[in-house]
Amino acid sequence: MDRGRLETFSDGVIAIIITIMVLEMKVPHGDGLNELLPLLPVFLSYVLSFVYVGIYWNNHHHMLHTCTRVTGAILWANLHLLFWLSLFPFATGWMGENSFAAVPTALYGVVLLMAAIAYYVLERAIIRVQGPDSVLKKAVGRDWKGKLSPVLYIVAIVATLGSPWIAEALFVAAALIWLIPDRRIENILPRIEA
Amino acid sequence: MDRGRLETFSDGVIAIIITIMVLEMKVPHGDGLNELLPLLPVFLSYVLSFVYVGIYWNNHHHMLHTCTRVTGAILWANLHLLFWLSLFPFATGWMGENSFAAVPTALYGVVLLMAAIAYYVLERAIIRVQGPDSVLKKAVGRDWKGKLSPVLYIVAIVATLGSPWIAEALFVAAALIWLIPDRRIENILPRIEA
Amino acid sequence: MDRGRLETFSDGVIAIIITIMVLEMKVPHGDGLNELLPLLPVFLSYVLSFVYVGIYWNNHHHMLHTCTRVTGAILWANLHLLFWLSLFPFATGWMGENSFAAVPTALYGVVLLMAAIAYYVLERAIIRVQGPDSVLKKAVGRDWKGKLSPVLYIVAIVATLGSPWIAEALFVAAALIWLIPDRRIENILPRIEA
Amino acid sequence: MDRGRLETFSDGVIAIIITIMVLEMKVPHGDGLNELLPLLPVFLSYVLSFVYVGIYWNNHHHMLHTCTRVTGAILWANLHLLFWLSLFPFATGWMGENSFAAVPTALYGVVLLMAAIAYYVLERAIIRVQGPDSVLKKAVGRDWKGKLSPVLYIVAIVATLGSPWIAEALFVAAALIWLIPDRRIENILPRIEA
Repeated sequence: MDRGRLETFSDGVIAIIITIMVLEMKVPHGDGLNELLPLLPVFLSYVLSFVYVGIYWNNHHHMLHTCTRVTGAILWANLHLLFWLSLFPFATGWMGENSFAAVPTALYGVVLLMAAIAYYVLERAIIRVQGPDSVLKKAVGRDWKGKLSPVLYIVAIVATLGSPWIAEALFVAAALIWLIPDRRIENILPRIEA
Repeated sequence: MDRGRLETFSDGVIAIIITIMVLEMKVPHGDGLNELLPLLPVFLSYVLSFVYVGIYWNNHHHMLHTCTRVTGAILWANLHLLFWLSLFPFATGWMGENSFAAVPTALYGVVLLMAAIAYYVLERAIIRVQGPDSVLKKAVGRDWKGKLSPVLYIVAIVATLGSPWIAEALFVAAALIWLIPDRRIENILPRIEA
Repeated sequence: MDRGRLETFSDGVIAIIITIMVLEMKVPHGDGLNELLPLLPVFLSYVLSFVYVGIYWNNHHHMLHTCTRVTGAILWANLHLLFWLSLFPFATGWMGENSFAAVPTALYGVVLLMAAIAYYVLERAIIRVQGPDSVLKKAVGRDWKGKLSPVLYIVAIVATLGSPWIAEALFVAAALIWLIPDRRIENILPRIEA
Repeated sequence: MDRGRLETFSDGVIAIIITIMVLEMKVPHGDGLNELLPLLPVFLSYVLSFVYVGIYWNNHHHMLHTCTRVTGAILWANLHLLFWLSLFPFATGWMGENSFAAVPTALYGVVLLMAAIAYYVLERAIIRVQGPDSVLKKAVGRDWKGKLSPVLYIVAIVATLGSPWIAEALFVAAALIWLIPDRRIENILPRIEA
């Protein structure tokens, strides 16, 4: 099993996910500017999810780049990650259509949490195959981002009991942490390849 | 005709199928937790079909990997398989929306059966082109999985006359049999390539 | 401009077209077998269009394979072909939902005709770039299939004034003519490459 | 980060955008020729957007071809461009369904403007990475097309206050300017590579 087809398939699925999310923004029937106002929360949800899927695509690329041998475990860990990412359009649409109400916001947090866990599982699967000298293990290091994000998502889910806006702020914060491209792998790779 | 473009096209179609299935899970209008309950059968159908399409993608990849020459027969046998896979979103949506009722469950079984037959036809087409020393023929061996699955699907279709739940159990069982990655081809390939 | 990206992009668009067509087959709300009956014309339209798009993908691949230099003219002739192919889901859905009524069947014929013309224009653009010793020109020869199909489509469009079933029969006949893979290019290519 | 995966992902997203736009052209329920008349503005909007997305795909390809090193800035500038392109189906559908009414036409102009700005930002990001001897910088030269288009879009947005038809004419004009393939990069590249 070569890495190439795994990358191509994952890219295809992620490209479709990021694009069909926009279909949740239904074309309004009227033609006034006021027709756009109720779409604002749907639009903002879409922006947030677009950034998240972009982050996953970016980091997924860096991670797979270190993966030289694809086993059955890696393949299914990857499909497991794609499964949770495929729920983004649903969770985004529900949160947006209900203007960031508590329960849909909590569900959005659950999907983010499950995707983060799936990403972590895939990371461990690749590291396990690479053995004691794992390039990826060195690259992620203590992986504070990977450990902090799920905590933020859990806090956000609980926070929806109080106010969903705290949760939204935490989702944005977690995204910002990741928006800074993962220099860990970028930095270590050239040293190891040299 | 090179294998590469056949793989890319198949991957594209499979990536779209696996992703648009989630569109059958319509965003509910209310924002309560109780809105999610009626979606549970749709979600479970989606999980089952996601796993099935994942299995097809995985095994399809292994099978095509042994295929060095693409003939018109292989090309159309491949499109025939993609055709039946493309009916997964419809069959999944119908079964899920009707909470695993008898007739939609039977139709789901028919689509599974036709996809299994199409897969077998493609397998034979590749083996025929490879001739008497076919790598794929050695790899699949007696192909007990490929022969057992259609039987399970037929039993499941008939079982919907009694209870659709027997059928669902058989669908899950057949998926579990395949979830174990196809080590037959993985094992024999290195020996032959060596 | 390299051929590779043109192929990848075309494959992506064709893969999406062939897959979203199935979305026109709406999941019925009831769970009885009788719910499927009204879907039969939609299903048959889908089968016909699936075969047509498969034929286009197959022949498009063979044709591009002979194309070593991509000019602006080829690029836009290719996008022009993809444009008409992108109308297949609409034309298929309209014809299917109206059980092969006259006007939707005529529109389906118009889309087939425009796609055939677009294919011919692309073929000429590639031949023009290849110059007097064009590999593609030798391969297509007198191109009787490419000349007969548009005639069949025009006859079919006119025939819908009488009975749409004559038109459907002509669509099936034209598809069968093409279903036989384009051995002309397959046969000549090895001789030329040798 | 290699350019290949960035191209593949962008091609995938653009292929999906160009294809799902057609889904905004809803299949009418009746079967008369008069059913198609109200779809004419939707169809014309689709044609315009198809051409625009085709132009972006074409120029994007040429631009990325000069890009030898992909940084985090380039990656996110590219995702930013894809984000605005992903709003084409929505803006196209809204403008078409309202027969080119003023406000939807203005929004269409806003999306065109933002995409043009995003394209410019990506261009600058690539030039910055390439340094003082930037191939892309030489290729785009004074970049009069890239500077004129946003001006045309802004004029068009303002013009919708008077008549949306002036705006539509400007959108068509701006498309025609770009339809002529970007020979600047095509011309300079061989000289530089030589």
